[in-house]
Order: sequence, then C-alpha cells, then structure tokens
Amino acid sequence: MSNPLRIAVAGLGTVGAGTISILQRHRDMIAQRAGRDVTIVAASARDLTKKRDIDLSGIDIVNDAVSLATRSDVDVVVEVIGGHEGAAKTLVESALRAGKHVVTANKALIAHHGVMLAKLSEIHGVTLAFEAAVAGGIPVIAALRSGLAANRIEKISGILNGTCNYILSRMYHEQLEQGVVMADAAKLGYLEADPSLDIDGIDAAHKIAILASLAFGTQVDVAGVKATGIRSITLRDVRYADAFGYRIKLLGVAEFHDGTLIQSVHPALVAKALPLASVDSSFNAVQIEGDSVGRVMFEGRGAGAGPTGSAVVADIIALARGDRYPAFTVPTASLIASSAGDVHAQRACFYLRLSLKDEPGVLAEFTRVFAEEDISVRAITQRDIAEDASAQVVVLTHVTTSGQIARAHQKIAGLAVCVAPPVLMQMEG
Amino acid sequence: MSNPLRIAVAGLGTVGAGTISILQRHRDMIAQRAGRDVTIVAASARDLTKKRDIDLSGIDIVNDAVSLATRSDVDVVVEVIGGHEGAAKTLVESALRAGKHVVTANKALIAHHGVMLAKLSEIHGVTLAFEAAVAGGIPVIAALRSGLAANRIEKISGILNGTCNYILSRMYHEQLEQGVVMADAAKLGYLEADPSLDIDGIDAAHKIAILASLAFGTQVDVAGVKATGIRSITLRDVRYADAFGYRIKLLGVAEFHDGTLIQSVHPALVAKALPLASVDSSFNAVQIEGDSVGRVMFEGRGAGAGPTGSAVVADIIALARGDRYPAFTVPTASLIASSAGDVHAQRACFYLRLSLKDEPGVLAEFTRVFAEEDISVRAITQRDIAEDASAQVVVLTHVTTSGQIARAHQKIAGLAVCVAPPVLMQMEG
Repeated sequence: MSNPLRIAVAGLGTVGAGTISILQRHRDMIAQRAGRDVTIVAASARDLTKKRDIDLSGIDIVNDAVSLATRSDVDVVVEVIGGHEGAAKTLVESALRAGKHVVTANKALIAHHGVMLAKLSEIHGVTLAFEAAVAGGIPVIAALRSGLAANRIEKISGILNGTCNYILSRMYHEQLEQGVVMADAAKLGYLEADPSLDIDGIDAAHKIAILASLAFGTQVDVAGVKATGIRSITLRDVRYADAFGYRIKLLGVAEFHDGTLIQSVHPALVAKALPLASVDSSFNAVQIEGDSVGRVMFEGRGAGAGPTGSAVVADIIALARGDRYPAFTVPTASLIASSAGDVHAQRACFYLRLSLKDEPGVLAEFTRVFAEEDISVRAITQRDIAEDASAQVVVLTHVTTSGQIARAHQKIAGLAVCVAPPVLMQMEG
Repeated sequence: MSNPLRIAVAGLGTVGAGTISILQRHRDMIAQRAGRDVTIVAASARDLTKKRDIDLSGIDIVNDAVSLATRSDVDVVVEVIGGHEGAAKTLVESALRAGKHVVTANKALIAHHGVMLAKLSEIHGVTLAFEAAVAGGIPVIAALRSGLAANRIEKISGILNGTCNYILSRMYHEQLEQGVVMADAAKLGYLEADPSLDIDGIDAAHKIAILASLAFGTQVDVAGVKATGIRSITLRDVRYADAFGYRIKLLGVAEFHDGTLIQSVHPALVAKALPLASVDSSFNAVQIEGDSVGRVMFEGRGAGAGPTGSAVVADIIALARGDRYPAFTVPTASLIASSAGDVHAQRACFYLRLSLKDEPGVLAEFTRVFAEEDISVRAITQRDIAEDASAQVVVLTHVTTSGQIARAHQKIAGLAVCVAPPVLMQMEG
C-alpha cells in the first residue's frame, strides 16, 4: 500500500463532523476500497471550546481555516464551511494554489466561482471535487462525469431542495397550510435561521447551475437561472393539483439546445404517474435524459451529516485511489459559453388559480384575456368559495409559451374582478 | 492528448452495434470527456455476410472472436458475445492474459467466473469492467464502487429483469393474463427465443449475485441465489395485490449480516408507496441501503442497444481517462468467502392465495395449519369463485419466518380441499 492520504477538514459543523465520523468508523473498509489509509491530520473550527460528539484525538484543531491550505502535512483539504465568499473561498483558492486537492460540499461557492476554481486546479495539477455540493448522498455528479459520459444529455431536472420538498410533502399528506408546516419545521430544527435560501429557490438554483454545466459542458451560469420559490403555494393549490392527478414539486430544470441554455427553478404540477411525483419528504431526486440511455433517475437523501458525509468521503476515496479528472469533466477551456435562452419561448401546459369576485360576467372578463393571448384552455373549474368570499377558479391550459401565459397572468392580475394575485405554475406530464 | 485508445468489439449483435454507433456518433464529445481519442480497430462477428445498420468502414472485421485477444493493435477488448462458456469465456481469459483491458456486458460470465477473471486481471495488471452487465444504462456498479464507497451497505434490492417487469406491468395496466402478454411480447420481438432465463429469474439471479459481491465485498456466489420466477403469477394475483395496495414485482434481494449472505430472486407484493412499486414497463431499478447515505434508488432502462451501449462506452471512457480499479472494488484476495444464509430464517409478511373447494369446514382445515405453524394471520379474504368453481381465498400473514410459511404452504397444498397449488409471495412494506 502507498502512503496514507492526509486530510484536513475545514469546518466542524454537521457535514464536517459527519465526514470525520465516517472516516473514523470505517477506517479499515475505506483503506481497503481506497487502496491506502486515509488519515485526518487537522481540522478547523470557529469555536474551539464547543463540545462536540466526535472523537478529535490525534487531530490538530486550529482556529484559522485558511492556515490548513498551506500545511506540508496535508494532501487534501475538505472545505465544509459554506458560503461563497469569505473564509471558504480564500481557503479553497489557497489550497489549490498550494497544490492540494480540494473536496467541497459548498454549492454556493461552486455555482459562483466553480469555473475560476477549476482553472486554478488545472494550473496547479490538482483535483477539485464537489460530489457533496448537489443532492447530498446521491452520486449524481459522478454519474454525469463518468457513468453517463457516453451520452449527449438533453435535459436534466430534479427535486434539489429537501426543505421545500419536506414542506410540500407535509402540506399534501397532512393537509396543512405552508405556514403551519414552516412553524413546525422551525420548532423541529429542520429550518435554517433564514430559510429564504431554501424557500425562494436560491439553493436549488445553485445546484441546477452546477448540474447544467456538468451535463452540457457549458460554463456555470448561476445568474442565468430564473428562480421562483414556493412561497405562493397554498394548501388550496396542493388540493386542486391532487384532484387533477398531480403533485406540486419545486423543480430545477435545465435544457441545452443549439448553444442556448435554459435554466429555471419553479414549483410545478407533476403528474402522479411520473417518478419525480412520488419523491417524498426531504428526499432529493435527479432525472437525466440522455440520447442513448434514455431517462435515468436517481433518488436519495439530499442533506444531513450521513448523506453529505457519504459524498465527501466518496470523493476522498476516489482521490486516494488516484482518480484524476477535470472539475467539470472537460478542461475549462473547452466549456461552452452558452447564451441564456429566452424562457418566454418555452412551451408547456400551465395551471392558473384565480381568486375572483363571485358575480355575473366575471368568467367572460378573464376568458377574453385567454382569447387575446391565443391561449387554448383545456379545463376551467370553479372549485370553492374561499374565506374571503372569492370564487376559486382553476384554469388548465393546453400547450402554450411561457411568454403568452406570463402576459395573460399579468393582464388577469390587473382586472378589477381579480381579488388576489393569481397563482401560476407549469405542468409536467 | 495521449495516443488514442484502441478498441476491439467482439460481437456485432444489439449491444455491439449500439456500442459502435455511440463511439462513432459522439467521437468528438467522447474524446473531450476521455481526454484522448477512442478508435475502433477491429470487430468480430459469426456471420460476416449479414447486412448491418452500422458503418463498419475502417474496422477490421474478423470471424474468430478469440483472435482479437492477442492483436498488438488493440488496448481494450469489448466482449458482447454473451454466454458464460465458449467463445466469450475463452476470449476474455485470453485478452486478460495478453494484457488487454476487458469491458463486458456479460452478466452470466461475471456471475459464474467473475472472481477467477478478476484474479487474472490483477495478475496481468489490467482492468476488467462490467458496468453493462447489470441494469443496462444505470451506472449502479460505478455507484457501488465509488459513489457509495463510504458506506457499509446493508441491503440491496432491485427490479433487475426488464422482461419480467414488462410482463407484470402489462398484466396490471391492461388486466391481461400472463400468457396473453407473453404471446404479444413474442410477436413484438421482446422475448428471447427461450424466455426461461428471464421468466424463471435466472438472469436476475446473475445480476443480484454480482451486485451483492460489489456491495458487501463478498465472493460472487451465484449458486447461493434462491431464484423463483414469475410463472405462477396470474392476473388474479395482480388484482388481489392491487386491492390490498400492492404491486407485484420480481425482486432480486441481497443482505449480508455477520458473514452470512442471503440472496434471492422472487416475485413479491411491493406496497404502492415504495419507490420500487412504480417502476414500470421494461425499466430496471436498484435500491441500496447504506449506513451513512440511507436509501438510494437508481432507475433507468436495463436493456437495449442504447442503454447497454451507454454503459459499455462509459467503461471505455473511464479506461481512456486512466481510471484503474479492482473488478470487485477490493482485491480478490480480500473478498469474503461468505456462507449462504438460511433463507428459512428470514422474516417477512406473506401473501398466500388458495384455491379451495367451496364447501363447509374448509376454512377450519387450513386455518388449523396456520395455528400449528404458529403463524399469525393479518387478514383472510374470500375474493371470488374461480372458473374451476374453487373459492379463491387470500391470506395475508403478520411477520413470520420463511421456514414457517414454507411448511404451512406445503401442508395446505397437501389438503384434499386444496384444488390447485397455492401461490405464495413475500410482501415488502
């Protein structure tokens, strides 16, 4: 066996502790699978006095994460601090410059600075690995890089945020309003102090931007992701979707055609017969459509010490074994500078829920808008009278463009008979 | 870029043609992802005169597959002939001995001779890769070897035979008897000339034996797989399962505890809420339970030129990139010689469908058997009177052992009131 691979872990939060725990618990098994020992030399934490549930004996614990980058007794720096600026970014840059391999779980960092960091890793002849940055324990990055490498990928879509999926799943199964689930989740410690990164689709936007780059060979373009979160989704929408045979899911979707990249995060009605519809609770799932393999789906836990630690350690084992690869599968110089596609040109069916005054002539007013925008309607149903005495009307459209439906949405929202903002969602399947 | 990787393809059937087609269609993309060109130097076919849909210009086509093993102009031999003896085995052995890497889609060969061939590959310092041997285009072998390598795997289960899943799915969705679907599938060319390898669970047994070895680090033990196929499953069972909230699926299952390996292939009632229940048509799926990652599921197409070719080419790209690994993740000397577990000790709930004479006292006769075997019954339902005038009685048990239910099954089958062999299936979830 070769020399042990020497690791430094920056950050002793959930993922850092999970990583260390796996490396310690499965020391022998990992050595066998990696072909050499993996030892933890050093770790950093902001608070050195904090009690932790892991055994840190024999590990040099320091306060300054960035100092790990230049230690001569370290081969691989594991960055699990988080955030796309500050210590995490400085550490990863310094480590690559110092000729260390880097393993990170930091989706924000890779989404914002991935190409720059990948270039640095090329210059210094080291590997930048980030399996843990997307979909936790699901080895989807390895699948895109290797297992599905024979395919031209046409589309990738997924449930990429466990918090949103947990909220939407409980709304569906327990028939609860979003606010009730949020309050309960906060009490149970399942929510971040500021849940907006999750709820507003920003976390999922980071992830779909990374997946798109790997799938299509394009430069990561997180700014090009049109992200809508789940705040507007009510129990009423969940129920109506159910009645039509759909589940509401927050999807990240990316498509690439003729140099044009379309990326979005949005709540969608997913037909119950589709595999993504039955991905429940905090599970994540990624569906990939390749030209040879067809549709492939991966499902598993997207967060937590165990699943994310599993992905971090998988990257470490691959490094120990000697696997070397460009961060985004192909050299950064080959990454395509895509142009952001016109989301308004995208074609889909749509769900539109309207809260209208319950009076004669209302139907004529908004159906006129659909006629003006040349949108063909598949179904109109008046479902209930809401607490505010508004009539709840759901419109399902035939295939139309995002642009047409957006204009119709805006016009209807401006009608005097419309008493609350209409809720608009794309439909899948 | 390094020298091109030079390939010989043994066998120009569906998978061979699929492999060549992908390598030709995506030459540039593959070169970019592999870091070097991949060229097809030679191929073999039994019938050199046959018209084929692929472009073979520039490829040296020979009749003798085994001659590919020793060509000095070949780096990698792709074996897609099939069968676990004869030309396929001789070719793979010779190629490894000649210092060539081998990529194969041959599940029978790997299930029967995998460890011997892996040893040969170690001795000669080459890689034996077989992603395409299990679950077609789903990169599950790479996941076990790398993506989930940080986990102790506790259980692996899957829908591993697309033909059986296609038959069971059509029985369910179209309410057809098995014979009707089989006849139609034969007409459509979906069935092998001798479908027994599929229908009797032998193909799935090969696959679960390979997955078990990779998951648990045990020696491949295909003889240790207790395989039952789907022949006994009638439309009546599919309907009754549906009424109880279950789908019938042919599962391959492997568990490893304390040096004991339990492997089986059997039709089972899978609760509709479980992800495996909704895997339809010819799709395959593999569910893996790891100690850190939890439950992960992979779903995709398990057969056909595109999906299987996708897996073969993925292995070729990894070889081109320089990835090297032991065939079964750890060196063959480290593979555990497991003992076959006592399947009779396995605990589960069971479904038993009885065809009984429709006369008084019958219920007492067979319920006495359950009492004798100390099996606790969860539900007994008389469903219908069948065409043969027998009363169709379904018993669902509480958790019991396979041994107890097997004895009860045998006793009941011997009762005079039992007019047809009882149908017994395990329940999941």
